[in-house]
Amino acid sequence: MRNFNEDTITDAVLERLQGATNARIREISEALVRHLHAFVREVRPTQKEWEYGIDFLTRTGQMCDDKRQEFILLSDTLGVSMLVDAINVSSVPGATESTVLGPFFVQDAPEGKLGEDISNGVEGDPLFVTGSVSTVDGLPLAGASVDVWHSDDDGNYDVQQLGEIGGLAMRARFRTDASGRFNFWSIKPAAYPIPHDGPVGEMLKAQGRHPWRPAHVHFMISAPGFEQLVTHIFVAGDQYLDSDVVFGVKDDLVREFVLRNPSDEGDGRATNRKYYYLNHNFGLKRAAKSSQSLESTKVSRVPGAQT
Amino acid sequence: MRNFNEDTITDAVLERLQGATNARIREISEALVRHLHAFVREVRPTQKEWEYGIDFLTRTGQMCDDKRQEFILLSDTLGVSMLVDAINVSSVPGATESTVLGPFFVQDAPEGKLGEDISNGVEGDPLFVTGSVSTVDGLPLAGASVDVWHSDDDGNYDVQQLGEIGGLAMRARFRTDASGRFNFWSIKPAAYPIPHDGPVGEMLKAQGRHPWRPAHVHFMISAPGFEQLVTHIFVAGDQYLDSDVVFGVKDDLVREFVLRNPSDEGDGRATNRKYYYLNHNFGLKRAAKSSQSLESTKVSRVPGAQT
Repeated sequence: MRNFNEDTITDAVLERLQGATNARIREISEALVRHLHAFVREVRPTQKEWEYGIDFLTRTGQMCDDKRQEFILLSDTLGVSMLVDAINVSSVPGATESTVLGPFFVQDAPEGKLGEDISNGVEGDPLFVTGSVSTVDGLPLAGASVDVWHSDDDGNYDVQQLGEIGGLAMRARFRTDASGRFNFWSIKPAAYPIPHDGPVGEMLKAQGRHPWRPAHVHFMISAPGFEQLVTHIFVAGDQYLDSDVVFGVKDDLVREFVLRNPSDEGDGRATNRKYYYLNHNFGLKRAAKSSQSLESTKVSRVPGAQT
Repeated sequence: MRNFNEDTITDAVLERLQGATNARIREISEALVRHLHAFVREVRPTQKEWEYGIDFLTRTGQMCDDKRQEFILLSDTLGVSMLVDAINVSSVPGATESTVLGPFFVQDAPEGKLGEDISNGVEGDPLFVTGSVSTVDGLPLAGASVDVWHSDDDGNYDVQQLGEIGGLAMRARFRTDASGRFNFWSIKPAAYPIPHDGPVGEMLKAQGRHPWRPAHVHFMISAPGFEQLVTHIFVAGDQYLDSDVVFGVKDDLVREFVLRNPSDEGDGRATNRKYYYLNHNFGLKRAAKSSQSLESTKVSRVPGAQT
């Protein structure tokens, strides 16, 4: 095989892939070559533009370390992460919608006791969260595992400031009680820009886009026999709900964080200031046999992108 | 914009790109999103496969340093580099065909004197190269710049073994004489595998492909008023001519390296052993006004991938 030109090189590369013994690898490789070549054939890059592309991808890889995952940011900001989510998670009546996992999930978050304050001393407006986990038919699920994690009121996660705050905070893993309920105290999260001092920030700027995500609390909920749910609850009224830089907002995931007067133990704790109140019920789908748990995958290998 | 699903997210991302003030950036970004999403929609990656992709790209970037450019290798082995070459370089009768630049070009190679030996002491079978540079109509071009570079008989370039051989070797920049000719002595290059101990090697193995390139000598030829020519001359009979891992071989670039009897100054130097002889004439196209010189681009910023 020689003498390839613009019209023949794609078939030549595809032919070269026929030696792949794993059918799935061959399928993915073939699709990659066809779509990548179609992209190049459409935009007709100059040599200089090709070099810029090589350099951009190289810098994206080299920006990654144990605190930062720039390729996840690139996937998130190009809408690929939400597309992969949409492909893998079907919409079912009564089941809570999913959204991006983000990179700040921690495998072994501290076990939380129902009703306790997980802010771990980080300052902010008090927030009380209560909710339930049920089947899509509304039957409560007792003993379900509920991981929660969120940013502080500057938009930073605990793992971005471990040195300053001295440990994990604003995260815990709860178990629902006999009636499928859970509740905890924390602080209200804020909107924040994804890290934009690297190649992805350079791309967003060139594309005329802002880097902001609306304020949200992450939830990952599991119960035996049900599909794991990975989602957020967004704060209603946030100015970035319609322009989330990673395209993660769904209306069913936007909830009022209601400002309440000081509590006289009404939510399990006396407060002398106003606090925010969130109440949400999560519906889980029954697992198909081939259902895959995100917890069993290597999510901890790609930490760092603020999503 | 909220509630994106598999059918709506692509348009949502495209809409977000409308703020790009540079039309070319908008055009490239739009095409990237359309083709990337089409790829994802076709292969329907699981979350684990998406994570593998993120990890593969990250490792590819992190494999790059001043001696190695893994993303160029990826581009080369997926046929993208030759596609970009085909898009940018038109075929004209009488003009020598182009092929990939590769990463071992050095901006300021030593000036060579016609007839001299550029092997710089590196051992191998002697090779005498003679040739001419002309217009597509055969008019000789005097004073043309002729950069040559090639591997040793183990398939290694000088820049991969600077410590061992003590400096540049098997490379020089010549000027054609009044009749448009040049000639020099060196050693015969060998076929070699591209570096395959990184992610690209992992990909080639999974795709059932070998990592070899057929033996070749690189040429980069420039003359005022003509398009710069970037090409190789391949050694006829090489076993990898039909399976070059970077798809760079064209029949017109394959030439007999003729084995000759010891020379009694016949080619400017007395030899007491047999030597190889290559004679090739290079035709240059007249430059269009917008023609771009590769020398002016940042090719030296992405060194290291053995191509």
